[in-house]
Amino acid sequence: MKAAIVYKTDEILSRVERVLENLNISFGSFSSPSEELENYDFIVSIGGDGTILRILQKIRTCPPIFGINTGRIGLLTHSTPENFEEILKKAVKDFEIEEFPRIECENLLALNEFAILSKQPGKLMDVTIKLDGAEIDRLRCDGIVVATQIGSTGYAFSAGGPVVDPYIDCMIIVPIAPFRFGWKPFVIDMNRKVEISVESALLIADGQKSVEVSGDVEIRRSEHPAVFFKKEFRVSEMFRRVKFIE
Amino acid sequence: MKAAIVYKTDEILSRVERVLENLNISFGSFSSPSEELENYDFIVSIGGDGTILRILQKIRTCPPIFGINTGRIGLLTHSTPENFEEILKKAVKDFEIEEFPRIECENLLALNEFAILSKQPGKLMDVTIKLDGAEIDRLRCDGIVVATQIGSTGYAFSAGGPVVDPYIDCMIIVPIAPFRFGWKPFVIDMNRKVEISVESALLIADGQKSVEVSGDVEIRRSEHPAVFFKKEFRVSEMFRRVKFIE
Amino acid sequence: MKAAIVYKTDEILSRVERVLENLNISFGSFSSPSEELENYDFIVSIGGDGTILRILQKIRTCPPIFGINTGRIGLLTHSTPENFEEILKKAVKDFEIEEFPRIECENLLALNEFAILSKQPGKLMDVTIKLDGAEIDRLRCDGIVVATQIGSTGYAFSAGGPVVDPYIDCMIIVPIAPFRFGWKPFVIDMNRKVEISVESALLIADGQKSVEVSGDVEIRRSEHPAVFFKKEFRVSEMFRRVKFIE
Amino acid sequence: MKAAIVYKTDEILSRVERVLENLNISFGSFSSPSEELENYDFIVSIGGDGTILRILQKIRTCPPIFGINTGRIGLLTHSTPENFEEILKKAVKDFEIEEFPRIECENLLALNEFAILSKQPGKLMDVTIKLDGAEIDRLRCDGIVVATQIGSTGYAFSAGGPVVDPYIDCMIIVPIAPFRFGWKPFVIDMNRKVEISVESALLIADGQKSVEVSGDVEIRRSEHPAVFFKKEFRVSEMFRRVKFIE
Repeated sequence: MKAAIVYKTDEILSRVERVLENLNISFGSFSSPSEELENYDFIVSIGGDGTILRILQKIRTCPPIFGINTGRIGLLTHSTPENFEEILKKAVKDFEIEEFPRIECENLLALNEFAILSKQPGKLMDVTIKLDGAEIDRLRCDGIVVATQIGSTGYAFSAGGPVVDPYIDCMIIVPIAPFRFGWKPFVIDMNRKVEISVESALLIADGQKSVEVSGDVEIRRSEHPAVFFKKEFRVSEMFRRVKFIE
Repeated sequence: MKAAIVYKTDEILSRVERVLENLNISFGSFSSPSEELENYDFIVSIGGDGTILRILQKIRTCPPIFGINTGRIGLLTHSTPENFEEILKKAVKDFEIEEFPRIECENLLALNEFAILSKQPGKLMDVTIKLDGAEIDRLRCDGIVVATQIGSTGYAFSAGGPVVDPYIDCMIIVPIAPFRFGWKPFVIDMNRKVEISVESALLIADGQKSVEVSGDVEIRRSEHPAVFFKKEFRVSEMFRRVKFIE
Repeated sequence: MKAAIVYKTDEILSRVERVLENLNISFGSFSSPSEELENYDFIVSIGGDGTILRILQKIRTCPPIFGINTGRIGLLTHSTPENFEEILKKAVKDFEIEEFPRIECENLLALNEFAILSKQPGKLMDVTIKLDGAEIDRLRCDGIVVATQIGSTGYAFSAGGPVVDPYIDCMIIVPIAPFRFGWKPFVIDMNRKVEISVESALLIADGQKSVEVSGDVEIRRSEHPAVFFKKEFRVSEMFRRVKFIE
Repeated sequence: MKAAIVYKTDEILSRVERVLENLNISFGSFSSPSEELENYDFIVSIGGDGTILRILQKIRTCPPIFGINTGRIGLLTHSTPENFEEILKKAVKDFEIEEFPRIECENLLALNEFAILSKQPGKLMDVTIKLDGAEIDRLRCDGIVVATQIGSTGYAFSAGGPVVDPYIDCMIIVPIAPFRFGWKPFVIDMNRKVEISVESALLIADGQKSVEVSGDVEIRRSEHPAVFFKKEFRVSEMFRRVKFIE
């Protein structure tokens, strides 16, 4: 078994390496993630949720990820610099994992969300939203977020979306700054097909990668989920911690 | 096979009776619903969503319901006074049905939602919300709505909740007029257990029945779903029609 | 000069009395407010914003109020049990005051807001809103709040209204749980006349006094403002503190 | 007296010219506005609110504007292609005007709002908000809108702000997509000084002109208001029409 360590800062790197050495697990340490991570048996991420999202942008097949939170909120992480040693040992020993679906669009993958934004900041764009081929809404706004349940605490949260149970596979559609008297976040089954029609826009995956798009942009569940070590109390902890997002 | 017709107004009653006669189906016609409806093979509801909710308050085991909308929005109904004849005939012939889960609390059932409200209008109440036994939030508000996905277009909608796919089984927790800087609607798996702790409050099921409650009030999925004739385009139609709720 | 002390709890009462004695000001101490307070030169309120609102319900002509906050937020108060002695002495010496307008309706006065609520909790009511005689909106909701700028951090805050500069004389109209796709808080000049038409409802002034109303209910600026000792940094402090409302 | 006609499309241009000829008023007709407009006695704008905002970007001293709405909402306009002839004649005859304040920032003027936006779409920016020199909030968001009351139906509306009486001089501060559990629109007296601190951002005036800014950006009331012919029923009409913004 071999592990990859991906670190944002190297402060606790040697402590993580020691834990793996004590477990007799060989490892490589990387300051920036690459496609190569697919070849490891598991990944230890030292950083915040952003570090995990950057790792995921590099890989399609995902080894289980264990997160040590050195950032702010850390909803995806399993431990902190203070308590990771015991939790990491136990996680590797039990090797219980869980998957969270990713969504795909134009060859990009996202665990949190796709944001489709006006290329010119502050410029309204005309958006049509289709569900399984049928138009369900049409509006003018700064952009549209199509998030997963995991992304319900990301950009969709900022745009006014609900906080969703991490174990409900769904897409959350929320407009950004809609210029209309009324609007609502939509929560839909992840197995449906969402199409967003725009004239010309920026498509951003998990705040990391962006491409230009125009016309009908299709978003659907990917066959490449993100994989994590199982985390106890994930649900109640998440609902409790969203209050501290800032 | 025998059918029950429940009508809010008798305007199109004879036309509905004629359809059933032509199908050689015996029927009883009722201006108000009762427990007796459980003994019929299916129910035709003439009215709006409110009429269907009133029917559901009377029955635990639910025969399939076919709705003819004579009200405003009619998200649960299948047809209108203009077009019901063909649609009803086809529905009875195919007899394709679908179930939507109800939630239960203190021996009451709800298809849309339970509202837990301050007994004295305008009086703040202290509320604690628990999920599977763990406290996830605590706040002061006028009330709390715990809705199903079907109820996402009911009271939860007014309170600021998202519109949810009718085929995602979930509970939506939304406070009413929370006296706090921040709050968010929570969407959770319906198989979890929600507990709402209040000192003394009114529990209202689907806006129809109410009882007084105090202490820990537990809300969970019921074993008695609501049953409807299948409706084509239910999802896209619903998302399109919420814009006209008023 | 004579002062009235109104206290919610008597913990710091003797310390307040000593300050007034040292200033050679005669005083009366009251555990509950009455109309008699109109006859004093100023009022020291020991309690939270609720205590000040209760005082104001009793008086039309308002002597300047100095608040010592023993409650939670205390946006209307001038000091705390820790620091009131110096601040109170200076306030009485300088005797700089400021007025905040009250609004009136059906012979009731309110500094924060009038709430017009459905008499039966959870029951939608039909509401028509008129401005200077012209209908501006019509909707179904649990209630309507018509607040002053000072009340922008009270019930209107819970219902979704903005936080308003205490020195902009205005009325804020916000529906409670509107059953409609779209709605917005309205902020209007306080010198306009607001009329709310309801079939039958409860009118509640500052969460303290309530009467039944039906038909057209008129709300307008009162000739009897609330009077306070001047408070430095009132504006920036208020905007900073709203984040801690809970 | 000489008038300037500024037209977005020339469809009704000749009809407008004929009205002015009949009134014996000399005029120039312009398909795009310029600084030169300052030299006219009044301006007739044929277009929507956008055309009026484009005119205002060109001028500091503002002749009275009369708007003929050929666009969507037209909250700033006085008439339509169907009814402008009589209304324009009466307006010029009575010559009753009214001013609405503009705000200024970095040498730009805005009638509706300044938007301070992340230069890179979808990228969070750290924002500190100061009021009269005192910090009142600090948050991460996609941008900040500082609008006038007139702009309460513009970008601030999209971002979640209230609709404000056109005769209350104020600034409305609303974040765009704030990544925080809680936030509120702030409505403040227009005579205060607002400072927005950002590392590096785009400042956009009325969606028309933009410059890059960094550090402390100060926004305050300008000495150059926008001037319009008086419009009857402006207030009630505006509150009624916001429902149709889309």
